[in-house]
Parts: sequence; structure tokens; C-alpha cells
Amino acid sequence: METEIRKRMREGSGEVEIQHIFKKKEIKGKARLIARIKLKQGCSIGSHAHGQEEEVFYVLKGEGVATENGETFILKEGDAMVTGGGSSHAIENQKKNLLELFAVILLF
Amino acid sequence: METEIRKRMREGSGEVEIQHIFKKKEIKGKARLIARIKLKQGCSIGSHAHGQEEEVFYVLKGEGVATENGETFILKEGDAMVTGGGSSHAIENQKKNLLELFAVILLF
Repeated sequence: METEIRKRMREGSGEVEIQHIFKKKEIKGKARLIARIKLKQGCSIGSHAHGQEEEVFYVLKGEGVATENGETFILKEGDAMVTGGGSSHAIENQKKNLLELFAVILLF
Repeated sequence: METEIRKRMREGSGEVEIQHIFKKKEIKGKARLIARIKLKQGCSIGSHAHGQEEEVFYVLKGEGVATENGETFILKEGDAMVTGGGSSHAIENQKKNLLELFAVILLF
């Protein structure tokens, strides 16, 4: 599995660790990202939209502050969110504990 | 999130707990299952094939014994497997600790 560090991802803060569980070329199914994502305190993925695709986030550890189309909500361990089809979203870790997400980007 | 208990799933042993993170009708993307799956010791999902789809398993906790087309291998925490396109697979928990998987079935 390949681990990638993205700095200021989508104009967010700090850095994001993306562990690619399977890369697009390794699968035939209609997904372009299957990853475990880690954000330290103060780190975020900035607001961005998904067009003809959908992103599923599932919180493995920690707590995140998500926004979708300007609305803010808290995602705790075991919580999930689906966003896409033109909606904008962002996610931030404001807590001391590491935020770990399972993320899948599904194609339409 | 809906939790389903399946007994002797795919002719396997014991029971399997499937927590549906999102059901097919809740998403537009090309997936028909996004779930957290729990197997206690001695429980298994029996051998079955996926045709025009692919299943991704990621081990969240515990250890599983997977078979794919007759070949056996051990999946530990953080390990992943992708199977489908006609291949047969099964998974079993032979250990005391609960086996927890993140599973996604992607359509072609």
C-alpha cells in the first residue's frame, strides 16, 4: 500500500496522510479512491466539490468537523457521511487525537 | 445505520453481523454494499463468487483466514483484499478476538 502526504490539500491546513488501500488501476469496480486518511490536530481538507462521483467517509478514530454546502456537523467514531454530485465539502480535525477516516470515492 | 444478522451466510458457520453504513438506495455511486462486518470466533462467510462486481475487504480488527479460488491466506489488521470478476472467496475467524472488516462491493 502506498502512503502519500498531501500538504494544504484542497487549500486546507497542514498535511493529510493518505494510505491507498487499492489504487484505481488495481481495481475494476467503479471507484477511484479507497483509502485510510489521517489528519492531525489543526489539519484539514479544504472545501471542494465532487461532480459525477460521490465520496463516502467513515470515522475509524477521533472526531472531525465536516462542512457540506456551508452546513457544519461533527463526525465521531463510527459516524459516516456521503457527499458528492456537485456538493461541496471539507473536513477538519480540531482535537488532540488523530482523526482517521476510511474514504471511498465512487463513480456514477 | 441498519444492523443485520445473517446466519450461515453463504453456507458458512455461525452468524455474521453486517452494519450497513450506507445502503444501495442511499447512494448514487456504483456500489451495492458499504458495511462494517463482524465475525466471532468460529464464524465464517462461505465460499461464493462475485460476477460483474468486486468486493474489497479491509481488516479493521482481528485476523481472518481468507480463501480465494482454493488458495488460503491470513489477513491481519490493516490488510486488505480485493476479489471478484468471477473469483470465489470465503472468510473465517479462527481466533478468540472479534474479526471486524470494512467491506465495499463495487459494481463494474
